[in-house]
Amino acid sequence: MIIDCHGHYTTAPAEMEAWRKLQVQAIGHPGQAPSKASLRISDDQIRESLEGAQLKLQRGRGTDLTLFSPRASAMAHHVGDAETSRVWSELCNELVHRCCALYPDNFVGVCQLPQSPGVPPQTCVAELERCVKELGFVGCNLNPDPSGGYWKDAPLGDRWWYPLYEKLVELDVPAMVHVSTSCNPAFHTTGAHYLNADTTAFMQCLTSKLFQDFPTLKFVIPHGGGAVPYHWGRFRGLAQDLKLPPLKELLLDNVFFDTCVYHRPGIELLLKVVPVDNVLFASEMVGAVRGIDPETGHHYDDTRRYVDAIDLSESDRQKVFEGNARKVYARLRR
Amino acid sequence: MIIDCHGHYTTAPAEMEAWRKLQVQAIGHPGQAPSKASLRISDDQIRESLEGAQLKLQRGRGTDLTLFSPRASAMAHHVGDAETSRVWSELCNELVHRCCALYPDNFVGVCQLPQSPGVPPQTCVAELERCVKELGFVGCNLNPDPSGGYWKDAPLGDRWWYPLYEKLVELDVPAMVHVSTSCNPAFHTTGAHYLNADTTAFMQCLTSKLFQDFPTLKFVIPHGGGAVPYHWGRFRGLAQDLKLPPLKELLLDNVFFDTCVYHRPGIELLLKVVPVDNVLFASEMVGAVRGIDPETGHHYDDTRRYVDAIDLSESDRQKVFEGNARKVYARLRR
Repeated sequence: MIIDCHGHYTTAPAEMEAWRKLQVQAIGHPGQAPSKASLRISDDQIRESLEGAQLKLQRGRGTDLTLFSPRASAMAHHVGDAETSRVWSELCNELVHRCCALYPDNFVGVCQLPQSPGVPPQTCVAELERCVKELGFVGCNLNPDPSGGYWKDAPLGDRWWYPLYEKLVELDVPAMVHVSTSCNPAFHTTGAHYLNADTTAFMQCLTSKLFQDFPTLKFVIPHGGGAVPYHWGRFRGLAQDLKLPPLKELLLDNVFFDTCVYHRPGIELLLKVVPVDNVLFASEMVGAVRGIDPETGHHYDDTRRYVDAIDLSESDRQKVFEGNARKVYARLRR
Repeated sequence: MIIDCHGHYTTAPAEMEAWRKLQVQAIGHPGQAPSKASLRISDDQIRESLEGAQLKLQRGRGTDLTLFSPRASAMAHHVGDAETSRVWSELCNELVHRCCALYPDNFVGVCQLPQSPGVPPQTCVAELERCVKELGFVGCNLNPDPSGGYWKDAPLGDRWWYPLYEKLVELDVPAMVHVSTSCNPAFHTTGAHYLNADTTAFMQCLTSKLFQDFPTLKFVIPHGGGAVPYHWGRFRGLAQDLKLPPLKELLLDNVFFDTCVYHRPGIELLLKVVPVDNVLFASEMVGAVRGIDPETGHHYDDTRRYVDAIDLSESDRQKVFEGNARKVYARLRR
């Protein structure tokens, strides 16, 4: 079985975006905000949005189950206030839940959190709990920068985040550390902000006591860990200069990387330097890069091909494709 | 011959830091600012600061010439105003010039620019010209984020930067795109901000018309290009989705990467995916990572060992070690 731990509902019916537009227009005019109930999307529309995209690609690529969350770039936690974010997150999560209910063998939910810049993460606990306990979700996406490219909130090691971590630990669900759209013109969203956030999050973990305080907390760093595996020697050396224990001891019980690296040499490097127990298969399809690589004739994001091409023992391959996901997303086992 | 295109004077005598402290204390009290002449550092002090550090490592590692610039983290363009930055940059560049004059076979200068957040880069032209024409420097470090981690200035493709680019082109010197200290608690300076800036700068170039407007402008992206080579497929795919030409055609006449990647698998990846014509040898010693890697028994930043270990033709190895540097830093040839 192949579990893809990183997929977003990037193909939601246009009604979703139209609803969001109304919500954004109503910011500052609370009476005009659309109700959740006003969103009308039929099951057939959902089927259609998935059949020609994620499901087709799952079948074509021979992957089985996608851990499925709302579109990351559309989380846009910087828009409006915490209430805006609460309603939008609930709506996005409920739509993902419908996908999972329609295709329970193909999708398991991962939720968006109703974060808002400067607002204590405590406010996300209720939606996290609802998604896990009532909707059967197995994880969440945690945005380390709700400001959208201005990095105004506290680093992930700060106690600011602890109430949320307490709930993650209690529910036994991991967080994928995933930013949303960049509003900062310096950062291209998928070409810079996403990768920068991955690197930044890793270094925030490295320099904090987070996993001493939460020894069972688990983070998945997406996009192959940003720059981290490529600079694994730098990070080993930085930890050493800081008189910290080796990375394995310091954070590899808690930090995992996905395989969203869109060429074979990158995946080779990832699996060469990061212990195999810390790598989870993922593609992020249908996502940031949608084309076909002229050098291979296959989609850039068809990451299964890269993993297949690597010389791994069957036991290690099983870990990357399935076992590690079941270990990190503990509720998948249930 | 082996040219290390990325070294900073990180071991300057303590008088330098003391002078800077006085300068910073005098911000807002112009009459109290120390004069440049009040800095007293003897030639012997400079020799001592280099003999036991950069020169010892050059000899030990068998490298020959370092392109030497002021300490990057100390550029701190966010401190004070443009006048603060002007005086500090001049002082730093003059001290580097003294290193180069004392050891002309070992060091060639690369200058710090007197940037300041929100101040037009035009103000850097005079110091750049002085360093190149009077001090014999062959390049500069260009900070894409003078705010120190808040990314408030325009992206590198913006016309905001053009007056500086015009001078770079006229003088035929490249810029290494290198940030300074991060003041943003989200970003560890050497573990996140440096790498993020490299990735960000590359993507800013990719999405701009910069090299159409300046076909002979050359940027060196340090630290192995941040996350870029590891995600080479992603960047190829993003360019393709944006209907841009292939990366080689789009920017590889203008953008180069150094080899400051502190483990062998990283350097292997770099030289596998990036054309050999675009890779310049560098170590950034004595820099961000100073320890000895217990896995190899050698310094993490002894990058020559990694390049030596890679199967390259002699002609390609010569390009990486020397030829590409002479091509990019055209004034080195004179």
